[in-house]
Amino acid sequence: MEFKVRFSGRAHRYTDEEIATVARAMQDAEPLTQGGHLAAFQEKFRAYAGVPHAFAVHTATAALELAAELCLLKPGDEVLMPSHTYTSSAYPFAKRGAKLVWADIDPATRVVSAATLGERITGRTRVIVVPHLYGFCADMPAILALAKPRRILVVEDAAQSLGTEIGGVHSGAFADFGVFSFHSHKNVSTLGEGGMLAVRDERYARLIPALRHNGHCDFPSPQREYWIPAMSNLDLPELDGRRLNVVNCCLGEVECALGAKLLERIDAINADKRRRALAFIDALADRPELEFHRVADRRHNYHLLAARLATGKRDEFIRRMAGVHGVQCVVQYYPLNRYAYYEKLGFGEASCPYADDFFDNMVSFPFQHSLGDAELDYVLGATRKVLASL
Amino acid sequence: MEFKVRFSGRAHRYTDEEIATVARAMQDAEPLTQGGHLAAFQEKFRAYAGVPHAFAVHTATAALELAAELCLLKPGDEVLMPSHTYTSSAYPFAKRGAKLVWADIDPATRVVSAATLGERITGRTRVIVVPHLYGFCADMPAILALAKPRRILVVEDAAQSLGTEIGGVHSGAFADFGVFSFHSHKNVSTLGEGGMLAVRDERYARLIPALRHNGHCDFPSPQREYWIPAMSNLDLPELDGRRLNVVNCCLGEVECALGAKLLERIDAINADKRRRALAFIDALADRPELEFHRVADRRHNYHLLAARLATGKRDEFIRRMAGVHGVQCVVQYYPLNRYAYYEKLGFGEASCPYADDFFDNMVSFPFQHSLGDAELDYVLGATRKVLASL
Repeated sequence: MEFKVRFSGRAHRYTDEEIATVARAMQDAEPLTQGGHLAAFQEKFRAYAGVPHAFAVHTATAALELAAELCLLKPGDEVLMPSHTYTSSAYPFAKRGAKLVWADIDPATRVVSAATLGERITGRTRVIVVPHLYGFCADMPAILALAKPRRILVVEDAAQSLGTEIGGVHSGAFADFGVFSFHSHKNVSTLGEGGMLAVRDERYARLIPALRHNGHCDFPSPQREYWIPAMSNLDLPELDGRRLNVVNCCLGEVECALGAKLLERIDAINADKRRRALAFIDALADRPELEFHRVADRRHNYHLLAARLATGKRDEFIRRMAGVHGVQCVVQYYPLNRYAYYEKLGFGEASCPYADDFFDNMVSFPFQHSLGDAELDYVLGATRKVLASL
Repeated sequence: MEFKVRFSGRAHRYTDEEIATVARAMQDAEPLTQGGHLAAFQEKFRAYAGVPHAFAVHTATAALELAAELCLLKPGDEVLMPSHTYTSSAYPFAKRGAKLVWADIDPATRVVSAATLGERITGRTRVIVVPHLYGFCADMPAILALAKPRRILVVEDAAQSLGTEIGGVHSGAFADFGVFSFHSHKNVSTLGEGGMLAVRDERYARLIPALRHNGHCDFPSPQREYWIPAMSNLDLPELDGRRLNVVNCCLGEVECALGAKLLERIDAINADKRRRALAFIDALADRPELEFHRVADRRHNYHLLAARLATGKRDEFIRRMAGVHGVQCVVQYYPLNRYAYYEKLGFGEASCPYADDFFDNMVSFPFQHSLGDAELDYVLGATRKVLASL
């Protein structure tokens, strides 16, 4: 189908300055991976997000895999998360033998809350994964108040919420692990793939460089010469007596140079998106059947612009938006329990009526940052016409 | 230590045209991952290397992880490989429960041969990993003649040997799996990280796109609309009744666009390196104590320029090259069994006298493609002086 306004898999354009940054790093970086740009990006990110330690990795999924590895899951451990999220929030834990327990979302915010999580906590709950979906930071203070006394580890999946905050604390900076994404869809992207893992615990921070890079680490005693006993060491990282699996998920120097540059623009992009989202939402205030989640402050970056259509006519809405007006709306976050992947693992059942209802009635509008004002106006006009026609 | 000539972690410079290719892809690619540049790179690579199926991934390690996953290892299975290689050739198999068995290298070629592998094959040998180390293609016809009648899977680790061939067949195109690298050190690099997995078996080829990308695959029956039942499907890949673990190791579009462009230059880079290596080797023909592996045809791309110093004075040679002349030689491929990583896994013992001897007496000269003629002449002059002084 040919669309006039597509739901793009790419969120933003690069400025000339950003392209020049990449060209310069292509010329100057030596080596092209694991060098000075990595260190500089991590340091700049740490300062930006207010996190104690930050490690750039190839994808947010890789960051979630590292977090899952560090959670030291044992058979029977339960990992609690919403069914309404992207698969990367979940499968690294399933892969390590955890029992996934699906929590419902709050119908107003479309993310998990202390209430929806609290009713699923058991004595075996070892980890809670909190995706700040759509770019809205879940109520982390309340969730931590629930988790900490029970010694439950908390992973914030802040893949969509970079730059959002509650009370001056950034999403991803509240919990044991904060996962960030620079994937093509995200508000800023390091050439299509990229991620960051933030941790608070020094023990994790000491292990991650080796976990991320094939087990490379210092020799137990200083090398006698730079090549003796060898150029570099490899060891098996251990945490609390458990051996951890290493991987190779390093982010290249050029991507890191670009990532550092993009951090200068993320607040402006978020502000643009928030302003446009609020204008779009307010322009449809007379159509209350389209239920948006309106948040006027930095707690929401409107990575995505999603609404619930209360009339039960969602599919016809999307059909007409596409067929009559050429606007590609999409539907997001098929409840994970409905995928064959999770059914086969025994996680096909969920009691998450709000997640199901939201998925079955939601619509996500084209909202990439690169969308022109005229295009967004066109989407708004089409929305009004289709709502009127239904 | 400050060096006049460093052993660089970066193999080559980018041309203006290559930088322009990256700038163009940054502007045009949509999405920035899993799009048209990926498909084009894979197709161009397939044609270049003469492989039936090729899948771009984030690193050669990721390609080895996928290969190891597809090998369907069972407890007790043995995986045979040289101790003289980089760790990524080995640990994906150890991680999956295989018993690693170390084969020796051939002292003339410094890679494994049918003879060195043959003496370690048992009834439990399930996989042989053949690294074409230094850029020299091992004797694949002989190795396959050994493996195939025994139904042993063969993985070619062609990370260093892109573009080399025997009888017109490229390294990486002989065996069940061919692994290629575009890491910073390699003869061509996709911005520091990148890899490719080539396979012959259609069953593998059908599974890899889902394995590489979080389990994404088609729905079993066509979608009723583009968003029904969801935008995309997730399933658990299975091979011979075994469930496989998915990962996210996609290579971004910009890297793929660059990779496709670099394929136009790899033969020229390889030819340059071979010409320079042969000249360097021949200029030292009067110093037979420095034993090079001289190969004048496309079977060797001289990714690295390595020699054995037969006098037992290797450490003093490197010390003087560095201290007196400011030339950074290095020592490569610490036998894997000597690392704490493999010791702790129970693979600390090896009976590989040639691998040990080569490591203990070898020197690897600075040989990145970006080295100027004057610098390489300087290295040659320093080498002559140090050899004379010893």
